[in-house]
Amino acid sequence: MSGPARELAIGAFDSGVGGLTVVQAMRRLLPVEDILYLGDTARVPYGNKSPETIVRYSLENLAYLQGHGVKAVVVACNTASAHALTMLQKVADVPVIGVIMPGVQAALAATRNERVGIIGTAGTIQSGAYQNLLRLSRPKISITAVAAPLLVSLVEEDWLSHPATGMILEEYLAPMQAAGVDTVVLACTHYPLLKPLAQAILGPEVVLVDSAENAAAALARTLAAHDLGREGSQAGKITVRATDLPSHFAELAERFLGEKVSDLSRIQMPAG
Amino acid sequence: MSGPARELAIGAFDSGVGGLTVVQAMRRLLPVEDILYLGDTARVPYGNKSPETIVRYSLENLAYLQGHGVKAVVVACNTASAHALTMLQKVADVPVIGVIMPGVQAALAATRNERVGIIGTAGTIQSGAYQNLLRLSRPKISITAVAAPLLVSLVEEDWLSHPATGMILEEYLAPMQAAGVDTVVLACTHYPLLKPLAQAILGPEVVLVDSAENAAAALARTLAAHDLGREGSQAGKITVRATDLPSHFAELAERFLGEKVSDLSRIQMPAG
Repeated sequence: MSGPARELAIGAFDSGVGGLTVVQAMRRLLPVEDILYLGDTARVPYGNKSPETIVRYSLENLAYLQGHGVKAVVVACNTASAHALTMLQKVADVPVIGVIMPGVQAALAATRNERVGIIGTAGTIQSGAYQNLLRLSRPKISITAVAAPLLVSLVEEDWLSHPATGMILEEYLAPMQAAGVDTVVLACTHYPLLKPLAQAILGPEVVLVDSAENAAAALARTLAAHDLGREGSQAGKITVRATDLPSHFAELAERFLGEKVSDLSRIQMPAG
Repeated sequence: MSGPARELAIGAFDSGVGGLTVVQAMRRLLPVEDILYLGDTARVPYGNKSPETIVRYSLENLAYLQGHGVKAVVVACNTASAHALTMLQKVADVPVIGVIMPGVQAALAATRNERVGIIGTAGTIQSGAYQNLLRLSRPKISITAVAAPLLVSLVEEDWLSHPATGMILEEYLAPMQAAGVDTVVLACTHYPLLKPLAQAILGPEVVLVDSAENAAAALARTLAAHDLGREGSQAGKITVRATDLPSHFAELAERFLGEKVSDLSRIQMPAG
């Protein structure tokens, strides 16, 4: 790495735009940091693909980010965190933060009745990553895990307040309500946009754990621990790269990021 | 090509399992033909990706099929047919049949009031492929085209009779009903599974044009014209290859194909 490491950008990747909710949370917590975000939109989504394929894509994403000299990498995707984090941490020469452990810690801190729900993609739920980590700390915890493959499309289509979305989300959350959970982990970076609807369905007593906020907090702790935090007060810049730029991508990205995307372009992946 | 060309298999590809509805229709019409099917499940879906990316993936799929010595190629995907057919026909050394022209011809034959609806992925609808071909033959035709990006996931999740699916499909079809169409083109190879629900919403008077059946008929005509039809009475065999094999893929494939998949395995694409 050239120059003082703390001046480098933080890298983050996701299969598409979902990880920009994590970047939005990173911005709030670490406003002076530069962020280089890679969305693998040419191969989105990851949630319904096999573990081997997700690991392969994740390694290519890491190689791109490291090739651009980042000081840390956030795996801003639950499916990639579930299947590839260990491998990514093994090959990376910078700290790699996933979204799952932060979510697990937040869920353990939030639950009072030891009954926790998890909602995510098929890949994330089938991996058992959340379930295993929760049980490691609390062997007697009761877990209701639901794969919700339809939610990503509904969020990307901006059907956030459509009655059909409410009907589908109600169906996914019903087993958690039946189990009496007091905490639900939104285990997909698309779901922060569904938080108001999920809260309305579950009621105000149920705590919703948001991947994005907790991952950003974990990143802040990691930067502090490695003395990698950028100094000064100038706002950091956000660079968004994507492996495909379908129509309306910029608008979609802005909805997830919560601010205008000024530096956006398409890249060709080595093997994609 | 080695051996008499008419003994070779027919190649077909799609972004995933949807194209197996076309293979099912090909089986009914051409039961003695061998079929080699490639589903690009590692990069599914194509419907929300850019034209450039869809062309690139389609060329790789064609290269795989031609590398295995097929006598004709069916582009069993509306999005790939919309964006890549011309290019595929240019580079292929065997006949290449798309699903769009057959659907257009069937719609023109079916409509009595010259008001036609088209429902498909964002990519297919935005390409204007159906609209342009319909207007070429009937300049005064009234077309109501609707992008329906949520339907593919609903079909893949087997939510065919779920009330949410009904609600969503009703919303997509409403502009067509308002326009008084008498014919609706189901312009995505996933949609044949939604035919009963769409017919119930639109009523028995509206003709539904199915990509799968019409593409199979076009293939049969092409084989006859080139003297490429296989002779004999032994049932042909179906070989399914996929660029990724997520869990439950075999069950999903069987639902679309309408019969058991006995020869299924994963391949690695040259550049995927």
